[in-house]
Amino acid sequence: MDISALKAKNPDHWTRACAIRALTLDAVTAANSGHSGMPIGMADVATVLYCKHLKFDAKNPKWADRDRFILSAGHGSMLLYSLLYLAGDEQITLDEVKNFRQWGARTAGHPENFHADAIETTTGPLGQGIATAVGFAMGEEILRARFGKKVVDHHTYVIAGDGCLMEGVSQEAITLAGRYGLGKLVVFWDNNGITIDGKVELSDKTDQVSRFRSAGWEVIEIDGHDPEEIDAAITAAKKSAQPTMIACKTHIALGHAAQDTSKGHGALTNAEQNAAAKENWGWAYGPFEVPAEVKNWWEEVGSRGAADRAEWEERFAALSDSRQKEFTRQQDGDTPKKLSAVIRALKKQISEEGPKVATRKSSEMVLEVVNPIMPETVGGSADLTGSNNTKTGDLGVFDVDSRKGRYVYWGIREHGMAAAMNGMALHGGLRPYGGTFMAFTDYARPSMRLAALMQIPTVFVMTHDSIGLGEDGPTHQPVEHLAISRATPNTLVFRPADTIETAEAWEVALTQKGTPSVLSLTRQNLPTVRREHKTGNLTSKGAYVLAEAEGKRQVILIATGSEVEIALAARDALQAEGIGTRVVSMPCMELFAQQDEAYRKRVLPAGPVRVGIEAATRLGGWDRWLLGERGREAKQAFVGMDSFGASAPAEVLYEKFGITAENVVAKAKGLL
Amino acid sequence: MDISALKAKNPDHWTRACAIRALTLDAVTAANSGHSGMPIGMADVATVLYCKHLKFDAKNPKWADRDRFILSAGHGSMLLYSLLYLAGDEQITLDEVKNFRQWGARTAGHPENFHADAIETTTGPLGQGIATAVGFAMGEEILRARFGKKVVDHHTYVIAGDGCLMEGVSQEAITLAGRYGLGKLVVFWDNNGITIDGKVELSDKTDQVSRFRSAGWEVIEIDGHDPEEIDAAITAAKKSAQPTMIACKTHIALGHAAQDTSKGHGALTNAEQNAAAKENWGWAYGPFEVPAEVKNWWEEVGSRGAADRAEWEERFAALSDSRQKEFTRQQDGDTPKKLSAVIRALKKQISEEGPKVATRKSSEMVLEVVNPIMPETVGGSADLTGSNNTKTGDLGVFDVDSRKGRYVYWGIREHGMAAAMNGMALHGGLRPYGGTFMAFTDYARPSMRLAALMQIPTVFVMTHDSIGLGEDGPTHQPVEHLAISRATPNTLVFRPADTIETAEAWEVALTQKGTPSVLSLTRQNLPTVRREHKTGNLTSKGAYVLAEAEGKRQVILIATGSEVEIALAARDALQAEGIGTRVVSMPCMELFAQQDEAYRKRVLPAGPVRVGIEAATRLGGWDRWLLGERGREAKQAFVGMDSFGASAPAEVLYEKFGITAENVVAKAKGLL
Repeated sequence: MDISALKAKNPDHWTRACAIRALTLDAVTAANSGHSGMPIGMADVATVLYCKHLKFDAKNPKWADRDRFILSAGHGSMLLYSLLYLAGDEQITLDEVKNFRQWGARTAGHPENFHADAIETTTGPLGQGIATAVGFAMGEEILRARFGKKVVDHHTYVIAGDGCLMEGVSQEAITLAGRYGLGKLVVFWDNNGITIDGKVELSDKTDQVSRFRSAGWEVIEIDGHDPEEIDAAITAAKKSAQPTMIACKTHIALGHAAQDTSKGHGALTNAEQNAAAKENWGWAYGPFEVPAEVKNWWEEVGSRGAADRAEWEERFAALSDSRQKEFTRQQDGDTPKKLSAVIRALKKQISEEGPKVATRKSSEMVLEVVNPIMPETVGGSADLTGSNNTKTGDLGVFDVDSRKGRYVYWGIREHGMAAAMNGMALHGGLRPYGGTFMAFTDYARPSMRLAALMQIPTVFVMTHDSIGLGEDGPTHQPVEHLAISRATPNTLVFRPADTIETAEAWEVALTQKGTPSVLSLTRQNLPTVRREHKTGNLTSKGAYVLAEAEGKRQVILIATGSEVEIALAARDALQAEGIGTRVVSMPCMELFAQQDEAYRKRVLPAGPVRVGIEAATRLGGWDRWLLGERGREAKQAFVGMDSFGASAPAEVLYEKFGITAENVVAKAKGLL
Repeated sequence: MDISALKAKNPDHWTRACAIRALTLDAVTAANSGHSGMPIGMADVATVLYCKHLKFDAKNPKWADRDRFILSAGHGSMLLYSLLYLAGDEQITLDEVKNFRQWGARTAGHPENFHADAIETTTGPLGQGIATAVGFAMGEEILRARFGKKVVDHHTYVIAGDGCLMEGVSQEAITLAGRYGLGKLVVFWDNNGITIDGKVELSDKTDQVSRFRSAGWEVIEIDGHDPEEIDAAITAAKKSAQPTMIACKTHIALGHAAQDTSKGHGALTNAEQNAAAKENWGWAYGPFEVPAEVKNWWEEVGSRGAADRAEWEERFAALSDSRQKEFTRQQDGDTPKKLSAVIRALKKQISEEGPKVATRKSSEMVLEVVNPIMPETVGGSADLTGSNNTKTGDLGVFDVDSRKGRYVYWGIREHGMAAAMNGMALHGGLRPYGGTFMAFTDYARPSMRLAALMQIPTVFVMTHDSIGLGEDGPTHQPVEHLAISRATPNTLVFRPADTIETAEAWEVALTQKGTPSVLSLTRQNLPTVRREHKTGNLTSKGAYVLAEAEGKRQVILIATGSEVEIALAARDALQAEGIGTRVVSMPCMELFAQQDEAYRKRVLPAGPVRVGIEAATRLGGWDRWLLGERGREAKQAFVGMDSFGASAPAEVLYEKFGITAENVVAKAKGLL
């Protein structure tokens, strides 16, 4: 392509944008891996966005009212790193750029939020950025309504590629954004017509413009290399009451031999071709070299927001002390001091009353006392509000004309919900939780994994957590889903046995700052198994002795959630035969594993035979607790599921699949 | 709603459709659970489809050239069961209908393909039906091209609800169908405006008509209660070269007190209201009673296809013997006899040559010899063709003008790909496999689980299966994904160590009839560890002794995939110190668990210390093999991952995360 016209028309812009292009070529070449074409193709859009519109202060990347920029096409990470380095970010230095994709560098292959303050979210798995951005934009709306426009008033900008838009989650995201009128969300579509396998049309012919319009979006079509068109489009987008998609016709790897080819998508490391590209661009500098004039200009861009920030700080200072404190507490993710008191009070009441309720209902009881004292919570459900019991009376419903509403009807969009919840958590100031059936962990998985990787405390309320769901059958009955979440690093999986444990699990989940939680809750009613009130949070230990053996301790029954009731019944039967039986409730394996060895041995001492009981697959972490101190064939057993479930009433299923006190007793006795 | 006009206009149709409505009310009431409103609302569409268009023979539900009917809104299962019972299906009897949702019944809460021949696929998780249908329709195109229109010429009909269309996977499905011009796919959208949480507009305002058009679909909008409009729309849809969406404006729970409400979505069991609804419909019969006249008419509908089938059988008989045999073999899912010979020949060649290649490349080498002798294979990749190595030279590319092509460019649609592959497998006559990065198991999960539940042999080719992926970093590095698939019932997870094991794994996967396989393959090169040719398939045993200890056997190293090389290096080091060390390669835990105890004990005898090595989480089934016969703290160790990975070159990551021969040696010696 002859790019001389582009250069000639806007020479200054061209040179500034070429700094991004050159740094990208150099870093990818040094790493001998990465993706060159996208940053080169989108440099013009990014340059105009950063220099004319994005509200940010490079030296204070965490300033609360900054605009958020999300690189959904995360493989083009050098676009973001180049921008940050050029603008004077103190973490993404030139050394970091030179260390692109190397051990210990902040400049990972894909942007990861925990490496630098200016990286808003982790992207790479396609579609996640745009879906997470919906949560950022919702968060802004909610906080603006709550704290006022003087304190919260910013935009969320996203760069998404064809890959992002082909992923199904993008449909959930754009229909949510359209439905909820997220006017401050602006998505740039890098319409370069290229994917890894070849031209986009090889696998897709979607009319993206009409697709976005069908979801209620404004759409503006521009030449993605024309700075004036880019500027005008962003200006228009900022005025729109609906979210805006700016379709940017671009050339991947612009000006390089690999331009407009799928080769251009990947790592461009051919020295000759790269030299030719730089010459073509008119970039006469050495590797990683940016002339002072260009760098200075970019640093001015990076410092432009300092004045905005200073003004914002003044406005913030004008808030009452208590409002300031509240805002700061929520931004910092600190839990209000009252939390432990209301949890304790609920536990006391429940231990006295001993209700028989499903733990999904228990969860609602907890939320009824938590939500009024934690205005930062935002609840929701993927169209199962009445089943997940996630909506409490005080929340109000988030909508176009009720932005203070704290309950989101997510529709049948588990994946979009999970991603948007992550976005709220990342935005700051909000603590999102949302529900669906536990089997649909499968739908939400990509975002649940990202929550763990990103170290954010999203809470996934997963109800109907076993064959106890009953007649809806195996498609709706989780079997392997406890294993899925337990196998995921940095994830707390709670399976509480009653309302007391549910309250304790919520308390732990709500005090996390860097770890998501999965609450595994029943459809069916369960008795209150903890009738003696304890002020301490036993669930925070992961496992504890719920019922001690009378006489010589011969058996330890270890159970979670709905199966604790079965363990207690089995204990009664065993004790009646004079067999001393301890019951250990294990609501959170991860927390139990974190206890010191002395505690673990106290709860699970060597000697007695062990039977684990959980209506799920044994592979969900059980071998560790059952096989630990004894030989396999002789001294332990597991009562659970080793197949998919079936469609029938819950009691029948428990009977047919052998998850019964009788079976536990027989197993235990067989081991003695 | 006053439905007298509907009744008066088409009295016969009305009565016949009401048989579905009444059976639904009765079955849901008897079960005291289920979903009444959808079958009641879609009874008119279903009646017209079955009586005027659907090509089926109720007594021969598996006839190869039948039209396929897929109830994507699977919660409305009574619609399907009513239709089947009425039309004279011999498996879905009146007794089965009366036993709706009970243990052992074929009439599960959601339709499950393994309960009755006429149930084409398992639905319930929303969006799965429509996405699976894409594979059915592709399968029809491919087989029609291969065997001719006289033998293969049928439609795929889908009923989808708002829930299906809100799920992201529906976008992947409809853009695939649009791109590939699947003109024989017809989707009825049950546009009733209601979800569980309330009106659709509560969470969605998508213009579905323009959304489908943006994906290249024909769209016809009709009154879903007007039999003439329904008939005309289906007639038009059958003529379309593009897939057609028929938007059916309907009333959920038509004529019932719960009509047009979210209550109507669920179980309508109020006796009084139900009686009133039946009176409103003009249905004066007792529970489960269908007057002979109506039943006879429906049975005529059910037998109408018998003549079509007889004609088809004549046409089929006109094929050459070899074509008939080939068609039948492929429909039955039988593997050609030649398979084991070509696998053996490849193994022999490889054991002699000993190439050092990535197992993703090994997989390609296998496919290069398999695809030419198995015309039923259909390969593909979610835009990672050159990375997954799924495309072999002979396949040709499936496209609008090349229907014989056996390679599908799925685009960036892991979920849609997995679902459509399932659809091909369910359709019969095809054996689909498809690739993506293993970390994106997360995106494909809902359909991978369904493959296992549905008992179909879809093959998921998951490459870049560990931190060995390198610089792309933790978003792209699987850690927990072996655990995810291993925890899923009825799934074979293969992690081959070299080309030989890869060939053996493919052989096992390709001979499955009722179990999906996951192939976990490396990005990085691996040596050939099996240099001695064995004709038998050792991988089919799940684990075997790869290298025996010299001298007294003190250590057993158990490893999979890329870590077998590390185990062998560790063995060398240990043997050099005089420590007898056995290496067990364990390419498939599920198959090893299926071996008899004598074999398992022969491979893993008690006595030696054990070290497991796998660049993944220990929770992926390791405790069972490590803790089996010995105490935990004393005698075993695991070398793997207990966190997410990082972005750096693969060798650096193995070093930094301690997955090295040195570490294995140290661990083993520490246990002695």
